[in-house]
Amino acid sequence: MEIKIGQEKLAKALNNVSRVAAGARATLPILSNVLVRVDGNKVTLTTTNLDMAVVSYLPVSQSEDGVVTVPARLMAEFVGNLPRGEMVEIKAEGEKVVIRAGEYTSTINGAPADDFPELPEMDDAKAVKFQMGVDEFKAGLTQVMVAASNDTTRPALTGVYFNTFEGALYLAATDGYRLAERKFIEQVESEVMAIVPAASLQEVLRSITDDVEAIEVLFDETQVRFRMGEVEVTSKLMDGSFPDYRQLIPQQTEVQVELKRDELMRITKLAALFAREVGGSITCSASAERKTFAVASVANELGENNSEIATEVEKDGKVTLNSRFLLDALNVLGGEQVEFGFSNKLDPIVLRAQGDEKYVHIIMPLKG
Amino acid sequence: MEIKIGQEKLAKALNNVSRVAAGARATLPILSNVLVRVDGNKVTLTTTNLDMAVVSYLPVSQSEDGVVTVPARLMAEFVGNLPRGEMVEIKAEGEKVVIRAGEYTSTINGAPADDFPELPEMDDAKAVKFQMGVDEFKAGLTQVMVAASNDTTRPALTGVYFNTFEGALYLAATDGYRLAERKFIEQVESEVMAIVPAASLQEVLRSITDDVEAIEVLFDETQVRFRMGEVEVTSKLMDGSFPDYRQLIPQQTEVQVELKRDELMRITKLAALFAREVGGSITCSASAERKTFAVASVANELGENNSEIATEVEKDGKVTLNSRFLLDALNVLGGEQVEFGFSNKLDPIVLRAQGDEKYVHIIMPLKG
Repeated sequence: MEIKIGQEKLAKALNNVSRVAAGARATLPILSNVLVRVDGNKVTLTTTNLDMAVVSYLPVSQSEDGVVTVPARLMAEFVGNLPRGEMVEIKAEGEKVVIRAGEYTSTINGAPADDFPELPEMDDAKAVKFQMGVDEFKAGLTQVMVAASNDTTRPALTGVYFNTFEGALYLAATDGYRLAERKFIEQVESEVMAIVPAASLQEVLRSITDDVEAIEVLFDETQVRFRMGEVEVTSKLMDGSFPDYRQLIPQQTEVQVELKRDELMRITKLAALFAREVGGSITCSASAERKTFAVASVANELGENNSEIATEVEKDGKVTLNSRFLLDALNVLGGEQVEFGFSNKLDPIVLRAQGDEKYVHIIMPLKG
Repeated sequence: MEIKIGQEKLAKALNNVSRVAAGARATLPILSNVLVRVDGNKVTLTTTNLDMAVVSYLPVSQSEDGVVTVPARLMAEFVGNLPRGEMVEIKAEGEKVVIRAGEYTSTINGAPADDFPELPEMDDAKAVKFQMGVDEFKAGLTQVMVAASNDTTRPALTGVYFNTFEGALYLAATDGYRLAERKFIEQVESEVMAIVPAASLQEVLRSITDDVEAIEVLFDETQVRFRMGEVEVTSKLMDGSFPDYRQLIPQQTEVQVELKRDELMRITKLAALFAREVGGSITCSASAERKTFAVASVANELGENNSEIATEVEKDGKVTLNSRFLLDALNVLGGEQVEFGFSNKLDPIVLRAQGDEKYVHIIMPLKG
């Protein structure tokens, strides 16, 4: 195996794939390696953690076919520290991999490629496919992922639910306390109901480089593949079923106020400072008479806090919720104005960005 | 107690003093508070951790004398989150402190000022004083502090030694493996031999704002005070004696090479990647015949590495050292060219920035 390739391209690709590789002290040491395969004038770099694999394709002019594995992070850091613009020569001599660039020479001890776990195949022709613009994908996915759970005792809730409904593709996530849903594609031909691990989606988001314009998503029975430019992330789907969440989204709420997003964020932050000792609990109240929306923290050891925003209010109402969830929602909601809707103490709070009917964020209230 | 003050000024001052205040769960709760004293048209904010105190002075137009203490971080975060440009009104009602700004109202529970620990006095007239430009102070202090120890079992080595010698003021630090010394002031009248805790100096560096031009340093028998603009940091001095370090600095070395700092840094980083499993140990060698300076890692499980720089070499030599110490030194040495001098395997390595005779950095070699 032998290649000659520019430092910048190689460093970028290695940096990308090495994040998925295990650290130096992995229980299965081969998982800390990157598989380097040279086939004609194409190099394929592959890493996997068994749940997901990242593959990066690179064109090379001068090469000799072959395959080898080397510690991914060491190689990424080594190539990353070489001077920019330098040509890098990589040559496998048995399991030793010699890297040369100008006055720099390194020999990295590799491992046989036979030990590298085989990745399951995916039949492109049979897979269900969707395609979308990368900016829309990134923004929308970030809005949904915020509601996914970290609690591994309910694995299905740690994923994002890709589901088709009435001819459209939706993404949804919930941790049981809040729920986020976004309509991703208005009209789709195929159907899908699949839970994708949030960890794999984080990796997808990190793998999107500036030159990528569109992203292709392919599903088969057990896997999902995200194809973006020269990088592919393939992940196992999660077992288990996702809650029937649509029934949880209220069609309308009794009290509805419109607020500037940055103002609501500011007064929520102020109240949250005082709410630390009461689990983040804050109370929002709308007054039709005073025409105000107020956020207050409950009096406790630290003190108490109350802030108001002047706005149109048609009906009085009061609801208690976790300030962290409200801040998370306000962070991902786009736009200048938000709609904050709620009914009685036990019904879900509904948040939307004004003018964006495709995204909805639900927060369950706390018992006030 | 009552004041009215602009949000930005107050937020900046609170942010500065609150770093020294303890967290919410301090064993001595009063140490998490800031003492707010209003005296005429001056507000004094004070925090202390008993080893050091930070005082910030603020002018106010509208005020009513008094004194109170409130949780420092809560107040700093609260004021920091208020809108810029807003006027903030603070009023003590017994131990409750009411803060108002526009539509925002908070009541913070304070504690009586009597419980706040009294800070030792310092007699300005009797203190030994030095004054210097702030840029020089910051750059020089950073160069010295890097060599201070983290090992609290030898407390004197965790400080920086301010000492006068032959009419000049020097700062020095050593952790037993390396040593850094900088001549700070060419000619001084007074004498001082004092060890200042590195933690206090970190706080001094953080307290220097952009508008500060000069810094005044005052010593008495047990304390040091750094005065910079409207902020004063006062710290206890450390007990114990500092090693007689001057004898450890070699007057000359057998092998002396001049190298570009960024090139030496790069090849040291590359070698360091391979040296992780051998405690960071790397070997530097100079060859008079080949006219090269090479840095190599010792062969181990990961592989090995060798990189060279072409340079003038008059005498062959080889020395083994900890790559982390070399990188730390190269990071703080200014300038483009560095002088790397060494003798035999056991003698200290001497690093200087070319053209800067005031700073010297010594690294003890490892047994190769």
